[in-house]
Amino acid sequence: MPLSDAMTSYFAKCEEKLGMVPNVLRAYAFNNNKLEAFAAFYNDLMLAESGLSKLDRELIAVAVSAVNRCYYCLTAHGAAVRVLSGKPELGEQMVMNYLVADLEPKQRAMIDFAVLMSEDPARIEEADRQALRDVGFSDRDIWDIAAVASFYNMTNRMASATDMRPNHEYHGMAR
Amino acid sequence: MPLSDAMTSYFAKCEEKLGMVPNVLRAYAFNNNKLEAFAAFYNDLMLAESGLSKLDRELIAVAVSAVNRCYYCLTAHGAAVRVLSGKPELGEQMVMNYLVADLEPKQRAMIDFAVLMSEDPARIEEADRQALRDVGFSDRDIWDIAAVASFYNMTNRMASATDMRPNHEYHGMAR
Amino acid sequence: MPLSDAMTSYFAKCEEKLGMVPNVLRAYAFNNNKLEAFAAFYNDLMLAESGLSKLDRELIAVAVSAVNRCYYCLTAHGAAVRVLSGKPELGEQMVMNYLVADLEPKQRAMIDFAVLMSEDPARIEEADRQALRDVGFSDRDIWDIAAVASFYNMTNRMASATDMRPNHEYHGMAR
Amino acid sequence: MPLSDAMTSYFAKCEEKLGMVPNVLRAYAFNNNKLEAFAAFYNDLMLAESGLSKLDRELIAVAVSAVNRCYYCLTAHGAAVRVLSGKPELGEQMVMNYLVADLEPKQRAMIDFAVLMSEDPARIEEADRQALRDVGFSDRDIWDIAAVASFYNMTNRMASATDMRPNHEYHGMAR
Amino acid sequence: MPLSDAMTSYFAKCEEKLGMVPNVLRAYAFNNNKLEAFAAFYNDLMLAESGLSKLDRELIAVAVSAVNRCYYCLTAHGAAVRVLSGKPELGEQMVMNYLVADLEPKQRAMIDFAVLMSEDPARIEEADRQALRDVGFSDRDIWDIAAVASFYNMTNRMASATDMRPNHEYHGMAR
Amino acid sequence: MPLSDAMTSYFAKCEEKLGMVPNVLRAYAFNNNKLEAFAAFYNDLMLAESGLSKLDRELIAVAVSAVNRCYYCLTAHGAAVRVLSGKPELGEQMVMNYLVADLEPKQRAMIDFAVLMSEDPARIEEADRQALRDVGFSDRDIWDIAAVASFYNMTNRMASATDMRPNHEYHGMAR
Repeated sequence: MPLSDAMTSYFAKCEEKLGMVPNVLRAYAFNNNKLEAFAAFYNDLMLAESGLSKLDRELIAVAVSAVNRCYYCLTAHGAAVRVLSGKPELGEQMVMNYLVADLEPKQRAMIDFAVLMSEDPARIEEADRQALRDVGFSDRDIWDIAAVASFYNMTNRMASATDMRPNHEYHGMAR
Repeated sequence: MPLSDAMTSYFAKCEEKLGMVPNVLRAYAFNNNKLEAFAAFYNDLMLAESGLSKLDRELIAVAVSAVNRCYYCLTAHGAAVRVLSGKPELGEQMVMNYLVADLEPKQRAMIDFAVLMSEDPARIEEADRQALRDVGFSDRDIWDIAAVASFYNMTNRMASATDMRPNHEYHGMAR
Repeated sequence: MPLSDAMTSYFAKCEEKLGMVPNVLRAYAFNNNKLEAFAAFYNDLMLAESGLSKLDRELIAVAVSAVNRCYYCLTAHGAAVRVLSGKPELGEQMVMNYLVADLEPKQRAMIDFAVLMSEDPARIEEADRQALRDVGFSDRDIWDIAAVASFYNMTNRMASATDMRPNHEYHGMAR
Repeated sequence: MPLSDAMTSYFAKCEEKLGMVPNVLRAYAFNNNKLEAFAAFYNDLMLAESGLSKLDRELIAVAVSAVNRCYYCLTAHGAAVRVLSGKPELGEQMVMNYLVADLEPKQRAMIDFAVLMSEDPARIEEADRQALRDVGFSDRDIWDIAAVASFYNMTNRMASATDMRPNHEYHGMAR
Repeated sequence: MPLSDAMTSYFAKCEEKLGMVPNVLRAYAFNNNKLEAFAAFYNDLMLAESGLSKLDRELIAVAVSAVNRCYYCLTAHGAAVRVLSGKPELGEQMVMNYLVADLEPKQRAMIDFAVLMSEDPARIEEADRQALRDVGFSDRDIWDIAAVASFYNMTNRMASATDMRPNHEYHGMAR
Repeated sequence: MPLSDAMTSYFAKCEEKLGMVPNVLRAYAFNNNKLEAFAAFYNDLMLAESGLSKLDRELIAVAVSAVNRCYYCLTAHGAAVRVLSGKPELGEQMVMNYLVADLEPKQRAMIDFAVLMSEDPARIEEADRQALRDVGFSDRDIWDIAAVASFYNMTNRMASATDMRPNHEYHGMAR
């Protein structure tokens, strides 16, 4: 199935800005509809207006991927944390054990929630959402935290189930 | 944010065909872009051409939701299994413990893989994919099994994190 | 081994009141002594005078059976919760994830204790018993909660180990 | 509530044969009906005719109690294994980690099944029962293995929930 | 490899004081360097000056070994707890479930920390160390608790991996 | 407590060869006896003659540390794997999920055993040791695998319990 013009130009933009097309996109490209649906969903989640910064969203991505031990996502989003934060050690800490990272209390609450969602979503109760409000998140922010954490619980499994491998370029970024 | 014409007509179609708009769609409707992205992703996954039947996809949905003990998804997709299979007990068995269900070997392998993906995705290896090929699934089928199982690992968490509640109508369907 | 007169009349009473003899009783009936011992134990537990209502005892039965994912007991006692409470959704919630059920604080404490007993009995300490006293349970009530929760940890395993199947009639009750 | 004549004489027999009344019986004695139901159930299970020897039943009791880390039952039934087997080390091994015990293959299969029933009863399938038949157990034997393993999953929890303590006498027996 | 004079005299001292050479030392004796390194490390840990008494260190050894269900260490150090405390039941309780032991609050905090270190070391945070300070431990004491708990997490695994068996003499000590 | 001449020169050698004194050594240096015992034990384990190569021992170190999610050890030994193997991606794979690493069957069996020892040592049986012999390991090799895997189960916990932090230099090595 040939790529649509929109997807062809999306791949070109990836090459231009990142120097590569992420392998997850190449994987979905066997079917243009699936690729478009995935790209639209991903771009809204990670790039649209939100109370969460792009770094916040990448921190959640890595914390969730650490629970699920997803090689693809830890590599790609670990690199993103290093790049966006300018702190190579922070990327490593999020991969290895987020409790050793020097997170601000608000970020810590956000990550605790994302990890609970990943490890044992059925245990979540109103008190857990309230803990996020208590450190300053709005209900819309909570939606966004939940949406990002949920998304990586999907992509981690997609990557593991189909043995996706990260582009080589991620390994050396911002070390 | 007002709904686009496409989404307004999608909701009307839900009312007409199901007699309700599923609460998950109402939840996303606070933002038309997010709703469109979710609906497009969902519809490709559950309704597009695939080697998996609609019932297969619903069986995966319930088996994954049972791992994550998601009230919304067990209720909505448990009803779908009862409706599509015509077997009320099968819906209950998938909710409670899929090992007691009288699944064909091919379905059983599919569900075992979806459950492994949900419980411990990092343990998946080539041998697990090969087990699916051995009962007759193609690599494209494996992609679809993985995509459906991954998706419900996302929506289960979204529902639990935001306390989504299923429409009342699901409870009495096809008992 | 033929049934005693007492057991023959017990089975007749089941037929008259429930329209069936529960399959668990038919399973024990291969040996009249075992059936009598089981029936006496069960009837004292679920029907004798207690600070716990019959619905309370059924709520515990379902919560414990959900931990152990016992198809027989979730089906039979899920039906009992629907019948006794008049709330079909409550039966489903207890089966799927009791945290979403709208339980009163006293019932919630009771179920939390029963679930802890089922998941990790060795972790119980005086503080857990005290939490029950704090919401108004007496020490005799705590005995009864413990006895009911313990009993279903037995029967869940008996049903799973011997592949007991629930009577078909339970599925449609009080939907 | 005063004890019935039957229970009074049962306690006297315990004193005579064991030199003590086991504390579990004293615990149930607050209510004669409950004591009678428990004693009848227990005596059928542990003393009635069965393809399992008394030592087999005690081995199951200890293996199950080790999963649930029940101080009362490990102490009382660990003593019983030492007494009945004449092997003090066997009692200790069953308490600490049954995999180090030098069990015959048939006993090992029996204990593996009892431990699976205790740890994860919902995973039991026909293949697990077949494994017992393959080493020579009949279906009636399987019932008895299941019944004993289920029973200790009940009493372990009853003891932990109500903080029952074993009689001091058990500690020094058959060391 | 022949034993050095130091190790030969160490073994002689074991025979003289304990009536045996512990099997763990015999296991390491295939290589004098490894035996010397192990003995030096062990003796510093268990016998050197410390804010922890010898009984404290043995209590930690048993609590850790119970998490790891190590037959060798539970037998040898369970005996040491019985001997050093003069309380046979305490040794058994630490083996079976330390929550039933009548520990002082300071000892309980120490054991809780050692068990957390054994079960889930990555979850330890400053609050856990602070809880030890709050009951009166110095930072040097915390080092010693950590060192002993860590050591038995090593030896438990060494014993299980190589199937070390405890000397028969331990079983009857101080019953 | 001042360092002995031996330890002073050991630290100097570290500076010379690694460009730093590893923080774990600085941590033990509060007490010269403890430092000497630790250094002797470590050096025998990681540097002495063995059927395992230095890279093998580092692979075990990282695999064990990944189970225990130890930031210090994953950082220090992840760097060692990158340096010794010349494969930056291999170091990352061992940290994130060793199942994605392209290990030879013999190495894979070695790591599987080390991970089993870390996750559930009480489950090890003769069949697990035999699996190592079947791929060509001698009983002496098995001792060394066990010793290295056990050691990192100790140091992981020591590092987590006392919040040891890796030297900054490790992060950039051999990327």
